[in-house]
Amino acid sequence: MKKVLIINTGGTFNKIYNPITGNLDIDTKGKALKSIETSWLRELEVINIIGKDSLEMTQEDRDEILKQINLSSYQHIIIVHGTDTMDQTASYLDLKKVNKKVVLTGTMIPFSINSIEATANLASAYGYIQEVHDNGVYIAMNGRFGRYQKIQKNKEKGLFELIEY
Amino acid sequence: MKKVLIINTGGTFNKIYNPITGNLDIDTKGKALKSIETSWLRELEVINIIGKDSLEMTQEDRDEILKQINLSSYQHIIIVHGTDTMDQTASYLDLKKVNKKVVLTGTMIPFSINSIEATANLASAYGYIQEVHDNGVYIAMNGRFGRYQKIQKNKEKGLFELIEY
Amino acid sequence: MKKVLIINTGGTFNKIYNPITGNLDIDTKGKALKSIETSWLRELEVINIIGKDSLEMTQEDRDEILKQINLSSYQHIIIVHGTDTMDQTASYLDLKKVNKKVVLTGTMIPFSINSIEATANLASAYGYIQEVHDNGVYIAMNGRFGRYQKIQKNKEKGLFELIEY
Amino acid sequence: MKKVLIINTGGTFNKIYNPITGNLDIDTKGKALKSIETSWLRELEVINIIGKDSLEMTQEDRDEILKQINLSSYQHIIIVHGTDTMDQTASYLDLKKVNKKVVLTGTMIPFSINSIEATANLASAYGYIQEVHDNGVYIAMNGRFGRYQKIQKNKEKGLFELIEY
Repeated sequence: MKKVLIINTGGTFNKIYNPITGNLDIDTKGKALKSIETSWLRELEVINIIGKDSLEMTQEDRDEILKQINLSSYQHIIIVHGTDTMDQTASYLDLKKVNKKVVLTGTMIPFSINSIEATANLASAYGYIQEVHDNGVYIAMNGRFGRYQKIQKNKEKGLFELIEY
Repeated sequence: MKKVLIINTGGTFNKIYNPITGNLDIDTKGKALKSIETSWLRELEVINIIGKDSLEMTQEDRDEILKQINLSSYQHIIIVHGTDTMDQTASYLDLKKVNKKVVLTGTMIPFSINSIEATANLASAYGYIQEVHDNGVYIAMNGRFGRYQKIQKNKEKGLFELIEY
Repeated sequence: MKKVLIINTGGTFNKIYNPITGNLDIDTKGKALKSIETSWLRELEVINIIGKDSLEMTQEDRDEILKQINLSSYQHIIIVHGTDTMDQTASYLDLKKVNKKVVLTGTMIPFSINSIEATANLASAYGYIQEVHDNGVYIAMNGRFGRYQKIQKNKEKGLFELIEY
Repeated sequence: MKKVLIINTGGTFNKIYNPITGNLDIDTKGKALKSIETSWLRELEVINIIGKDSLEMTQEDRDEILKQINLSSYQHIIIVHGTDTMDQTASYLDLKKVNKKVVLTGTMIPFSINSIEATANLASAYGYIQEVHDNGVYIAMNGRFGRYQKIQKNKEKGLFELIEY
C-alpha cells in the first residue's frame, strides 16, 4: 500500500453553514476530512493550507501547493480543491513537471450538507492513486478518473465528465 | 476508464431498520447503491442477487456469484458483500481462477445508519479497480487495498487491516 | 386535538443548496415539511406562499399572510417564517387583531443542512398550539414559547431568547 | 415558561448500532438528547435512568420512574420511554395519582438512524407540556396529543393514533 498525503486547500468540500450570517464559510481546520477519517476507520495524513474558494486562488496559492508537494517525502498526493479552477491548478502542476502521482479531487456539494458526493470523491481518489502507474497530474471526480485534461467540469450539469478525443 | 459491474449480494451495506419489528433487515433492491449513484452523479451498473447476511451464505450462493462474474462481459467486477465471510468468498473465487479483476467490499456500519463508511468503501473500490494491473481477487475496506489474503477483518477492532508478512 | 394549518412562507427553514450556483435557494414546494410529515408519521396541512427570505418580505406579503389566516376555517395556525423579520410579521398580525391562535416559528439552520433545529421548532410549535388558551400571536423558537413580544432573536448568539420584564 | 424535567428511561429513542456485534444497543448516557440540545440551542434538564427496552421493564423500574417524578421539584415532567409498554407505565403512574403534568414520549425509529421522528416527538412533547392545564398523565407521539388512554400504538401501522370514543 502507498503512503498518501492529502493537501486540503479549501473549496466547496470544506464549506459549512454559518447560522449568524447565513453564509457558507470555508472551514480551515479540515473537519470534513476528520469526519471521513473517523467513520471510515482509516487514518488520513492531511495538511490544511490556503482555505479558499478556488475562484479566489492566486498564483502564490498555486506556488504554495507546488511547494508542499515537493516538500513531502511521499510520492502519492491527493489535493482537495475547489472545482472552478481545479483545471488551472492541475495544468500549472503539470507544467512544473511534478515527479509524483498527484490526484485532484473536490465536490459539487459541501460535505456538511450532503456527505455522500464529497466522501465518494475523496475515497475514490484514495483507491485510484494506489495503483496509478505513471507520475503525473490526474483528476478523480464523480466516478470519472484520468489525466487532468480528460476530466472536465460541465458547468450546466454540475458534474465532471470524461472528455473523449 | 474501465466498465465496472457491481454485484450486490447483501450484507450490512444494505441493512435498513424495520420500525415494526425493531430489526435490521436486508434491503434486496439496492437502495443504498441507488443513493450513492444519485449523490455521486455517477451511473452505476448493479445487479442485486442473494440478499443475505454473509453468515448465512451457502455454497450455492457462492456458485451464483461466480456464475454472474463469468456471465458478465466486463473485466472489472466489484462485489458488495457481508464482512464476516468476505474472506471465504474471496478464497473460493481465487480457487476457481476467475480471469478478471474482482474487488470485494462491504461495510461495518449500514449505509442507512451512517453513510460515510459504506460510501467510502464502495467508492474507493471503484477507484482502485480502475488501475489494478493483474487479474485476481482483491479486497478494498477501510482505506486498505490489496490481494484478499492481505486485507483481513479484525473482529475486536471492527475494521479491516493490512496483514504484513 | 386541534386542527392545525401550517402557512409556509419560506425563510431559512426551506433553504436548499444549489450545486450549480453555490447559493442557498428557497425551495417553494415545501419539501422540508414533506420530509417531516413522512418521518413523523403525521399528516400536516400546509399551504406554501410567498417563498422569500424574510428580509425581502413586503407589506403585500404580510397582507397575504393575514388573508390566508382569515380565509382558513381553522382556529390554530402555525406560520413558518424567516427569523430576521419574524417580529415584524408578528407585530403586524397582532395589530390586526387576528381572532385565532397564531404561532410563528422558523429556524437558524436550514432543514436540508441539519434537520434537528428546524424539526424541533416546528414540532414544538405543533405541540404548544394544542393547548394555548387565548387567541393571539405567539412565537415558538429554540424551546422558548410565549407571546411574540417575549421571544426575541439574539443576533449575536444566533438563537431566540425569552425576554423577562 | 415552565421548567421541564426529562426522565430518559431508554427505549428505541436511545438505540445505537454496535458495529462489532451488529446489534442495536441502548445508549445509557443520553447522547440522543444531548444532540437535540446542541442543535436546538435549548438546554435540557435530563436524568438518565433504567436504560432498557420497554419490553424488559419491571415493576421496580416503574417504581423508580415514580420515585424520580415525586423527588423532583418540577411540576412538568417528560418521560422518554420505549413504545411497547408506554401504556403500562402511563397507566401505573395514573393509578398512583401523580400530582404533576407528566407527558410520555418515545419513537418508532432510533434517533441515531433517522433523527426526525425522535426529535419531533420530544420537541412536540416539550411544547405541549407548556400549556397543559390539568395534572395527569399524557402521551405525545407522532403529532398526536392527549390523555394517555386516548393515544395508542397501532402495531400494524407502526405509529401512535388518537382513539376517539
